[in-house]
Amino acid sequence: MKKIILLPFLLLLLPCYIFAQDDEDAFKIREIYDISLTKGLAYNTLDHLCNKVGGRLSGSPGAAAAVDYGKAKFETMGFDSVWLQPCMVPHWERGDKEIVKIVASNMLGTQALNAVALGGSGSSGKLGVAGEVIEVKSLDELKSLGAAKVRGKIVFYNRPMDPLQVSTFSAYGGAVDQRVYGPATAMELGAVATLVRSMTTRLDDVPHSGVTVFEDKSKAIPAVAISTKDAELLSALLEKEAVRVYVRTTCEWMPDKLSYNVVGEIKGSSFPDEIILVGGHLDSWDLNQGAHDDGAGCVQALDVVHTFNTLDIRPQRTLRCVWFMNEENGQAGAKAYAKWSNEKDEKHIAAIESDRGGFTPRGFTTEAHESVYKTHIKKAKEWDKLLSPYGLTIKPSGGSGADVTRLKPQMGLLFGLQPDSQRYFDYHHAPNDNFEAVNKRELELGAAAMSSLVYLLDKYGM
Amino acid sequence: MKKIILLPFLLLLLPCYIFAQDDEDAFKIREIYDISLTKGLAYNTLDHLCNKVGGRLSGSPGAAAAVDYGKAKFETMGFDSVWLQPCMVPHWERGDKEIVKIVASNMLGTQALNAVALGGSGSSGKLGVAGEVIEVKSLDELKSLGAAKVRGKIVFYNRPMDPLQVSTFSAYGGAVDQRVYGPATAMELGAVATLVRSMTTRLDDVPHSGVTVFEDKSKAIPAVAISTKDAELLSALLEKEAVRVYVRTTCEWMPDKLSYNVVGEIKGSSFPDEIILVGGHLDSWDLNQGAHDDGAGCVQALDVVHTFNTLDIRPQRTLRCVWFMNEENGQAGAKAYAKWSNEKDEKHIAAIESDRGGFTPRGFTTEAHESVYKTHIKKAKEWDKLLSPYGLTIKPSGGSGADVTRLKPQMGLLFGLQPDSQRYFDYHHAPNDNFEAVNKRELELGAAAMSSLVYLLDKYGM
Repeated sequence: MKKIILLPFLLLLLPCYIFAQDDEDAFKIREIYDISLTKGLAYNTLDHLCNKVGGRLSGSPGAAAAVDYGKAKFETMGFDSVWLQPCMVPHWERGDKEIVKIVASNMLGTQALNAVALGGSGSSGKLGVAGEVIEVKSLDELKSLGAAKVRGKIVFYNRPMDPLQVSTFSAYGGAVDQRVYGPATAMELGAVATLVRSMTTRLDDVPHSGVTVFEDKSKAIPAVAISTKDAELLSALLEKEAVRVYVRTTCEWMPDKLSYNVVGEIKGSSFPDEIILVGGHLDSWDLNQGAHDDGAGCVQALDVVHTFNTLDIRPQRTLRCVWFMNEENGQAGAKAYAKWSNEKDEKHIAAIESDRGGFTPRGFTTEAHESVYKTHIKKAKEWDKLLSPYGLTIKPSGGSGADVTRLKPQMGLLFGLQPDSQRYFDYHHAPNDNFEAVNKRELELGAAAMSSLVYLLDKYGM
Repeated sequence: MKKIILLPFLLLLLPCYIFAQDDEDAFKIREIYDISLTKGLAYNTLDHLCNKVGGRLSGSPGAAAAVDYGKAKFETMGFDSVWLQPCMVPHWERGDKEIVKIVASNMLGTQALNAVALGGSGSSGKLGVAGEVIEVKSLDELKSLGAAKVRGKIVFYNRPMDPLQVSTFSAYGGAVDQRVYGPATAMELGAVATLVRSMTTRLDDVPHSGVTVFEDKSKAIPAVAISTKDAELLSALLEKEAVRVYVRTTCEWMPDKLSYNVVGEIKGSSFPDEIILVGGHLDSWDLNQGAHDDGAGCVQALDVVHTFNTLDIRPQRTLRCVWFMNEENGQAGAKAYAKWSNEKDEKHIAAIESDRGGFTPRGFTTEAHESVYKTHIKKAKEWDKLLSPYGLTIKPSGGSGADVTRLKPQMGLLFGLQPDSQRYFDYHHAPNDNFEAVNKRELELGAAAMSSLVYLLDKYGM
């Protein structure tokens, strides 16, 4: 009888309890935003990473300095432990400033093109190479031409990123095969060098680098990106006449090098075996400060820890902050982390990566093992009501990040911070991705978004 | 019997019909985006307005040139009629470059401050004025000091925009009384000049102008905005010592001047008496190109017409595009338009103003007469499903725009395009609000958002 009386009574209380919980969570998230927007460390830390450390290509002195800085910085943050997790990274060097120019055009004579070598490009030798240019829009188009027409030529991939995609990442996804696999395909057909239209929706003079893959590095040919304006010029010229281009790169592959992920951990007070990871990648390309890609993600992840400290939140679950090494050309850091974690039978209940630039956040994309995805997403979607006042929603799709996606077998929910994407490819892998390109408030709002999600994950689990 | 059979049959068809409608609308909106993102006129028109016409303060030669350009441009757009709607605008001139400096500081000696006169500032006379600075955080604080303590002094309003507001417009709303009414209040208490901390959340060297109001213009004292960094410096200095500041402005009120709204109209094919207005304001301040404020809004509004033309959509309802004059310091254009329209007993079923910068759009804020608001908003909210793929929602609050809000008595639904607000006050009323500050895709997405909403309003009415 007692039970029968109690149950309706408890049911009556339930809405009050839920309401009180929501209130408390809303209040805490408001506090988190207040800290990030007024006392956050994201912007100043990014300033240091960009202006004091600078470019951080895997294997470079800059990357080593960044690891040292990261470890020293982490050690000021009150982690229970901070460590460097070793990984062997590829080590490619750009060499001399690239020379790429139209030569012997009847229209233009000789004209320099705005160009940068792709990461993984081969060397032309000191003398450089020259050849007639053939323009194609796709790898398939090149293959259909066959080796006879490609041998000795310079292949020019010129399919633009689709401006009709509202998400610039979708547009990037639809064009980037030209950069990643195009040069190797051209090499196999006998081309002497490759030009790739820069991966950006802008029409300007800025060339955008990024990784290109040759299975046999010793056979790599020169592969450069040229600016979109120069791509338009070259294409227009090719409609009028045959064009020869000269390319000089002195890129070089060096032996793999020992490098590190920087890891900091706060042990969970109640559920130490349930890990929540926040991270970004520490490496960048060599030709910029890696401000949006991905200094922003690193400092936002660290700001989560700073905010928890400032608000005196001792996490119930283990909170780990990771600055991954070598996302750009190999993901050696991500692989080492996942291998090590899987071997220890760890359980990441969630991981959040920020690697889409420090722009105003719109929410989080997600992924998980299909056996748990529905359940996880249902739980996470309940937090939309707490996040929507800040312009955030949890998206039931879209993936996470290159460094955390390998944790999927641990059956947690993986998130990618999703900022506004319109300006990302104005800077991506280009010489202008520097500190000045990042807006302080936009960066801080991203950090606060991550802290808010971590707060909910820590409190309610997954 | 026939009827009874027919009804269930029709009901069965209804979902198909609705589905087909949604499909058709989704397809049309996709087409609209394609046009704006690839063939839109917004960016090039803004380039002309900024780089060829330049600053467009009411009553200035720049404003007159902008009206001429607007009329000529409208006449190429296939409107049924284009006209200039007269309005008498206030005519304030800045005069010489402002001089504002700390003088006779023990710490700093003499130091120039980054400053611009507020629109409506009085003149100091050629010799300038100097006085001891008193810092206050609010008008009330100043009033509580009383005339005895203010007389002969220079009042320094230094309450920052609240960085905790996620919407920077809310932060602006909470601080801007210092700029609009602060100088007149100081004048009434006997101050000889006023300094106002610039209205921005950034900490930098850029001063931000904007309107200040003196009921009796002949009594206006010098009123200048100083950069936020200089505000911090001055405040810190005042904690250590008394500080004198020198201010020289040669601003001048001239007689009101005849100016114009630029109006273009396409008569509705089915409901010519139902008007849908799209607009922005053509005037800007004199110290910049008025790119975000509000060249962006003008060119986005015109892009709606361009998109309709390109897609061969003949509107069923009358479509009017208006470039309003004098939003910044008097709204003479908005008043003239509303008066004229009300006198003609017109019915604007909807009006959309874009006046919050050319940033990535998030949706539309709304307002309407309270007797119709609920019904209107319910109808408009049904379009969320069509707009959400583009990151847009209709907000049941938030107002419309300064130039269209006066149309409320006509019982339509009034909209304000709502872009991301984080960067708006980096540029607002400041010398850096120039063409380069506008991102092409962000601008175009705003234009496409407006066209999509106009398409739905035109098809379904309000």
